[in-house]
Amino acid sequence: MSAEGKKAPGANVFGGVASGPPQPFFHSRWVPAPEHVRDLGPDAGLPTGFRAAGVACGIKPSGNHDLGLLVCDGEQPVSAARFTATGAPAAPVLVSQERCKLNELRVVLANSGCANAATGGRGLDDAAKTQGAAAMALGCDPAEIALASTGGISHLLPVEKMLQGILAACPGLEQGGDILFQQAIQTTDASEKRANLAVELPSGIVRLSAQCKGAGMISPNFATMLCFVQTDAELQPETAELLLGVCVKRSFDRASVDGQLSTNDTAILMCSGASGVQVAPESEDELLLGEALDALLRQLAIMMVVDGEGAERIGRVIVRGGHQPSAEAAARAVANSPLVKTALNGADPNWGRIVQAVGGALPGTAPLALDLTIEGIDVCVGGAAISYDEDALASAVQGKELEYEIGLPGDGAETEVFFSDLGHEYIRINAEYTT
Amino acid sequence: MSAEGKKAPGANVFGGVASGPPQPFFHSRWVPAPEHVRDLGPDAGLPTGFRAAGVACGIKPSGNHDLGLLVCDGEQPVSAARFTATGAPAAPVLVSQERCKLNELRVVLANSGCANAATGGRGLDDAAKTQGAAAMALGCDPAEIALASTGGISHLLPVEKMLQGILAACPGLEQGGDILFQQAIQTTDASEKRANLAVELPSGIVRLSAQCKGAGMISPNFATMLCFVQTDAELQPETAELLLGVCVKRSFDRASVDGQLSTNDTAILMCSGASGVQVAPESEDELLLGEALDALLRQLAIMMVVDGEGAERIGRVIVRGGHQPSAEAAARAVANSPLVKTALNGADPNWGRIVQAVGGALPGTAPLALDLTIEGIDVCVGGAAISYDEDALASAVQGKELEYEIGLPGDGAETEVFFSDLGHEYIRINAEYTT
Repeated sequence: MSAEGKKAPGANVFGGVASGPPQPFFHSRWVPAPEHVRDLGPDAGLPTGFRAAGVACGIKPSGNHDLGLLVCDGEQPVSAARFTATGAPAAPVLVSQERCKLNELRVVLANSGCANAATGGRGLDDAAKTQGAAAMALGCDPAEIALASTGGISHLLPVEKMLQGILAACPGLEQGGDILFQQAIQTTDASEKRANLAVELPSGIVRLSAQCKGAGMISPNFATMLCFVQTDAELQPETAELLLGVCVKRSFDRASVDGQLSTNDTAILMCSGASGVQVAPESEDELLLGEALDALLRQLAIMMVVDGEGAERIGRVIVRGGHQPSAEAAARAVANSPLVKTALNGADPNWGRIVQAVGGALPGTAPLALDLTIEGIDVCVGGAAISYDEDALASAVQGKELEYEIGLPGDGAETEVFFSDLGHEYIRINAEYTT
Repeated sequence: MSAEGKKAPGANVFGGVASGPPQPFFHSRWVPAPEHVRDLGPDAGLPTGFRAAGVACGIKPSGNHDLGLLVCDGEQPVSAARFTATGAPAAPVLVSQERCKLNELRVVLANSGCANAATGGRGLDDAAKTQGAAAMALGCDPAEIALASTGGISHLLPVEKMLQGILAACPGLEQGGDILFQQAIQTTDASEKRANLAVELPSGIVRLSAQCKGAGMISPNFATMLCFVQTDAELQPETAELLLGVCVKRSFDRASVDGQLSTNDTAILMCSGASGVQVAPESEDELLLGEALDALLRQLAIMMVVDGEGAERIGRVIVRGGHQPSAEAAARAVANSPLVKTALNGADPNWGRIVQAVGGALPGTAPLALDLTIEGIDVCVGGAAISYDEDALASAVQGKELEYEIGLPGDGAETEVFFSDLGHEYIRINAEYTT
């Protein structure tokens, strides 16, 4: 999927935020809200020291918002970033990696409607032009400006529209600008993925906000589609790097809509320090901020899967035992199996497909004595079907969230992947509408 | 997909063999018929020295044929076999591998309607019982009888029905029994995959026949779903082993419907020697028989992809350059990408998805200077879009068979994968019908 606006309203699992009263941010049974974290709601605005804006500059044919600016006003901003591991990264990823001081980022310039990927040297030049223009407009060093793009691959970036968009966005920068900024980075997303949290640390209360997009081409490796996180806590660069790195591994790296690694994945954590609360390395503050960031990113990752293109049901596969590469391969194989995903979509208790997927991922292990439990019901022990309550299983697989626990022989490893199903809506979005 | 009879008639790309006059066996542009090979048509029967039968014994609820017997009457049968590389092989695969003389097989006992997979020790016992019963009924050694099953995973084999089926099949064994045998091994197949060929060798003319099934859970690794090949040529066991091994690698190993490795893949070549034509190692006979077998298995592999569950279009991705593991990973990534497969289904020229799939498969290579040509039209050179005739491309992707050529930097490697698309019919088959 490469262009925005093609997802049917209400196609996501839990309904978009627009309908009914807003649900609490931590609403998945798989991410309990940490006790020291409070959800401030969608209108609380960014942490002190941050302003944002979003405008429509004509990149999206729909006329929807498509250019976002996010600025940190702190004197010494601290940041950390993660990008896609693809061999075919988009121009904004390459420019950000090669030209930016990634631990001192002050600005994010993001657009939707064009990925600026597979655009060669021209794409790099175009990205650099927008970076330079933003630096002039904001009066900062281009090396402080990270770029992020999302949309169709192979199209050239409309630089003129971007430049006009930057000029139009600057006057609108405000602390409550995260709402429009979020709109400007969305493509096929049917629901908003945004949070404003307060985190109680021993040294004081700090704020944590995030804006995230992603619905298709989602199987992040070291990053996610686009996710921007802000805090007013004062962190050393090494701490920001450590916290983002660990939490991304436990959240976006564990999510898959369609097993497809994007050319543009980007996750950036920015710290203004405006709260005056210092988070020292190896302190209780660091631990508790890390817990909050972990819960935040895990909930966002699950929201991305829930909003997976065409998703009606989502799954969590947990693999325990064996050694780590095997557990990882097994979990990925289940999460990305079209047979498992169509069964999930159809509420089909056909668990033989899960055995097949695990077996296919682990050649040379035959006969593999695997255990399988679905929603707490043991169905397969030591590689063989056991007798179980078939009615209870048939009823359990009707749920919107399914949990599959797989046991491999041996101790040690444990991993999980969150994944969406595969149904007609994914086909409709990705096959019926042509570019 | 686990049970038969759920595919809509006529859902395959080229139409089933039942409608209209039979098409020639070699009908794909990607497999030219070798000059020394003649298609004898569907009614020519098995090579001398072979008899087969197929019956309905009640395993399939539909009442369709579900048990097949294939017997070689030669005094010293020679054979070779390949099986799935899965870590979760079905009982018939394990029993065949552990109890059979795989280079002296005389009989194949095959059933559809039940895979006898994930059935543990009970499944092994059940498989062994059917092997023993067939040995008694046919008066041969159980070690000469290979077993092959296909159907739903996790269900126990209905042994009583199998035993009755074996008794019912024996009297019907005849040289023209390949038609009913083929019916007995089909599940979701919409078209028959069967051939009777004559091969002109320097030492004389020999026959080559094959029966093959496969439509879903297709991404063979060292074998295919089920494929049985017979020849009346006289081969040494090493020659049979060599020819089958090489040809399987170039055919079934290069096919993917849904990237899902089955628990039951089996390919068996049997040689009766009844023609009296000896095929000596490293002879011109061996070379030409190998060419015929190669073309036979490649055409069958393509027919399997064409008959992929719900398939409307098929693709061939060729990767040249780079080193072999990278080329293989890139080709597999394209063939199994749901984004590429939905674009193929929708006749969408959105080739950015191919760049994305290759990039995702080759982390650490950024920026990757890949070339991409679709149906002879260059669209991407050195990693960047070039200008091309968009109307010509839009027209070319309307075809039923699309060829994608990918160039990676460096010389050396070359590989290909045949794959089917992903459309509503795959979802309907695998999600809407529950087990």
